[in-house]
Amino acid sequence: MLHRDLHLDFNHAISPKIPQGVPDAELEAMAPAFSQVHRALHAMHEMGQVQFLHLPHLEETLREVETRAAKISENFDTMVVLGIGGSGLGAKAIAGALHGPLLPGVKKAGAKNLIVLDTLDPDYFKSLLDSVDLKRTLFNVVSKSGNTVETMAQFLIIYERLKKQVGENFRKHIVMTTDAKKGTLRRLCEEEGFESFEILPGVGGRFSALSPVGLFPSAFLGISIQQLAEGASRMIKRCAVEDLWINPAAMLAVVTYLLAEKHNRRQLVVFNYSESFQTSVEWFRQLWAESLGKQHDLQGREIRAGITPVHASGPRDQHSQVQLYVDGPADKMFMFWHLEKFDADFTVPKLYSEKDSLGYLGGRKLSEILFAEMQATEQALDDAGAPSFRLSLPLKDPYTLGQLFYLLEIATVYTGGLFNVNPYDQPGVERGKQYLYGKLGRKGFEEFGASLARRLKDKRYVV
Amino acid sequence: MLHRDLHLDFNHAISPKIPQGVPDAELEAMAPAFSQVHRALHAMHEMGQVQFLHLPHLEETLREVETRAAKISENFDTMVVLGIGGSGLGAKAIAGALHGPLLPGVKKAGAKNLIVLDTLDPDYFKSLLDSVDLKRTLFNVVSKSGNTVETMAQFLIIYERLKKQVGENFRKHIVMTTDAKKGTLRRLCEEEGFESFEILPGVGGRFSALSPVGLFPSAFLGISIQQLAEGASRMIKRCAVEDLWINPAAMLAVVTYLLAEKHNRRQLVVFNYSESFQTSVEWFRQLWAESLGKQHDLQGREIRAGITPVHASGPRDQHSQVQLYVDGPADKMFMFWHLEKFDADFTVPKLYSEKDSLGYLGGRKLSEILFAEMQATEQALDDAGAPSFRLSLPLKDPYTLGQLFYLLEIATVYTGGLFNVNPYDQPGVERGKQYLYGKLGRKGFEEFGASLARRLKDKRYVV
Repeated sequence: MLHRDLHLDFNHAISPKIPQGVPDAELEAMAPAFSQVHRALHAMHEMGQVQFLHLPHLEETLREVETRAAKISENFDTMVVLGIGGSGLGAKAIAGALHGPLLPGVKKAGAKNLIVLDTLDPDYFKSLLDSVDLKRTLFNVVSKSGNTVETMAQFLIIYERLKKQVGENFRKHIVMTTDAKKGTLRRLCEEEGFESFEILPGVGGRFSALSPVGLFPSAFLGISIQQLAEGASRMIKRCAVEDLWINPAAMLAVVTYLLAEKHNRRQLVVFNYSESFQTSVEWFRQLWAESLGKQHDLQGREIRAGITPVHASGPRDQHSQVQLYVDGPADKMFMFWHLEKFDADFTVPKLYSEKDSLGYLGGRKLSEILFAEMQATEQALDDAGAPSFRLSLPLKDPYTLGQLFYLLEIATVYTGGLFNVNPYDQPGVERGKQYLYGKLGRKGFEEFGASLARRLKDKRYVV
Repeated sequence: MLHRDLHLDFNHAISPKIPQGVPDAELEAMAPAFSQVHRALHAMHEMGQVQFLHLPHLEETLREVETRAAKISENFDTMVVLGIGGSGLGAKAIAGALHGPLLPGVKKAGAKNLIVLDTLDPDYFKSLLDSVDLKRTLFNVVSKSGNTVETMAQFLIIYERLKKQVGENFRKHIVMTTDAKKGTLRRLCEEEGFESFEILPGVGGRFSALSPVGLFPSAFLGISIQQLAEGASRMIKRCAVEDLWINPAAMLAVVTYLLAEKHNRRQLVVFNYSESFQTSVEWFRQLWAESLGKQHDLQGREIRAGITPVHASGPRDQHSQVQLYVDGPADKMFMFWHLEKFDADFTVPKLYSEKDSLGYLGGRKLSEILFAEMQATEQALDDAGAPSFRLSLPLKDPYTLGQLFYLLEIATVYTGGLFNVNPYDQPGVERGKQYLYGKLGRKGFEEFGASLARRLKDKRYVV
């Protein structure tokens, strides 16, 4: 087991190397502001208030999850996670990166299977039910509150199916991951005897990948959650220093903050060059958007903070989005994700060496061409005046992924600190939930349903 | 076969209904500018210069593709498209929407399979080779120029594999879709006798879904390409009128143009509520970004036009991006995609009716909950002052998809006209290709390779 650090390279983001980058002096000038944010985080951490930083060190939890997952997995081939947002994205990221293969339709021989059902699309639901063998399938219902509409609707349908098709032991096919004490799912566990895992207090969904929310599905797949935790611990240690030039999360936070606030680049394009890490980008999109997209600062002033995360994949989006990135509005910064070592590789055979457009490819490895594509795109963006930086991921292993999660979580909290917003709440999603409950007739939300129904449509505006 | 029109509803995008929407009077005032753009398009169309508008009426091509695809498909279960960007996205969109099921790992019994290989990731490539039966697999190599690095590298590897594993008839497993006369792939067809389809002159990749580029894979899957063409024709007809209030592409173009140019909303979030149409959103991302993201206007003045397309999926991204959309920067507009009828549906059973957070869901259909989620999200965005509009797709059928493609293609060309840019070119992608060729040692690009190599890294900026 290699234990290699991941690295960030800001050479394409800082002027004078890049004219449109952040001036070196501007970065230097951020040191006092960063120190304040860093010390505040540390003080809260030491008071036990920043729970996500404790997760990698909860050795008892890690061991318990591992032991119980091993036992549970004996009876099942497939786990379906009924969970959406922070209740599913961590497991999706881990499984995507570490439990390939990646092609739809391919299952590893002898390996377990994980499906995160974070949609209500009935056609998708049908394809799930058509494809799994209920007798060998475990449903992991993940919701802290037990209020999540999507998850509850799925659960009710699955509960009835299991009861009909699996027989009297059907409750063994359901595990709940929910609050330790409160909420509907916890009540159901008590009443019906479902096995359960606890969502730890003070750990919001988007910071929960290394809590049982993400760990139980990972351990079910046979992924080493100890090594995930070791990678996370390593990153926490690297980010414990106050010197922003050697703290990776600090550099990430300060550079993105300055590019957004001082240089008007309010979109962060994550340009990822490994298919395995696509779901990690999705996980990051939630972390970044929900943590930083805030109407008010900590003093209650309206500021409408936020940097929009945009998911691009290479080389696919070179042929789709790069025209816009190079020639369009100068409103973006770019974070390239580079996987340094793939599990497999292929060499292009030396054929048609007399043909200009084919000959030069002979003898090249796919990984080598892919890396060249990324470097060429970085340089083309440079030439167009767009700042970028590179995140290098050494390996597809749990240690790397643990580092990645914690780099991005700590950087997000730092950036929230620089924006002077609360990175842990999400007040803006309440309104939509209220309208939804109203529309569906849930008790107590009648007025929201009525106000939706009162909206008049002007036919002139329909075409 | 129902033939139902798709519709756009701009009630959430126009003020005074929505304070931050486009004032009705501003729309009215755009009528002359729109007329000019519309007439210019028509004049060019009649001069035979806007080839994509002719595609649905090329009856001979449609029949030929259908006949040949039926014959070719007799010998194969799977088609792998080696094509990227406009060479693959149309086929992906069509297969995604019309050839479900959608879950990774599920294959329709007795149905053909389509895989678009638009990546160079070696692990993904390995999972492809592990999963397909080469003896029953056809490779469709799609590139107009025959220069596309990704496609050429894939082709060379596959060529050698087929030769080794399939035996002397291996050339029957390769079809080329390329320029009728020019380029490396056309030469190879002549020299080696590969079967081929022609990329029609004057049809750029992103406008080629209804050319053989998209039609051959569709017909291979048994999808009615005649009905795709009928849907497209219907939309072309609806968009032939100069009155912008009844021309759907006109309304789409004018509203998005005004929101971007006059109201500073330079991101267009496509919030799609059907898993089947996810790949259609990806197709649209390319169309919109490459056509509108332009540094110069038609008179050569620097304008840096463009509206960034952002892909969101409902309800998944309600739990990931909506916090940012509601509370973050006021820089976005939203296009909701609503599928009116799914193929399957499920009713939530009436269980636990005494429990507040479960009881109200009993008796609801998944499609109904999903629609309520979309309406609630639209209204929450309204309350937050964010303009949105809704695209309603009647059915998952080729007629609907043909309409969708042409609505978006015509709207994109109109919007390009309003921005006064050329929607058909992509000058900004050349530089990246030059660096790539240079890096890989292709003849004639040595200087680009050298300039990449000369870049110095400052270690201070690496952490």
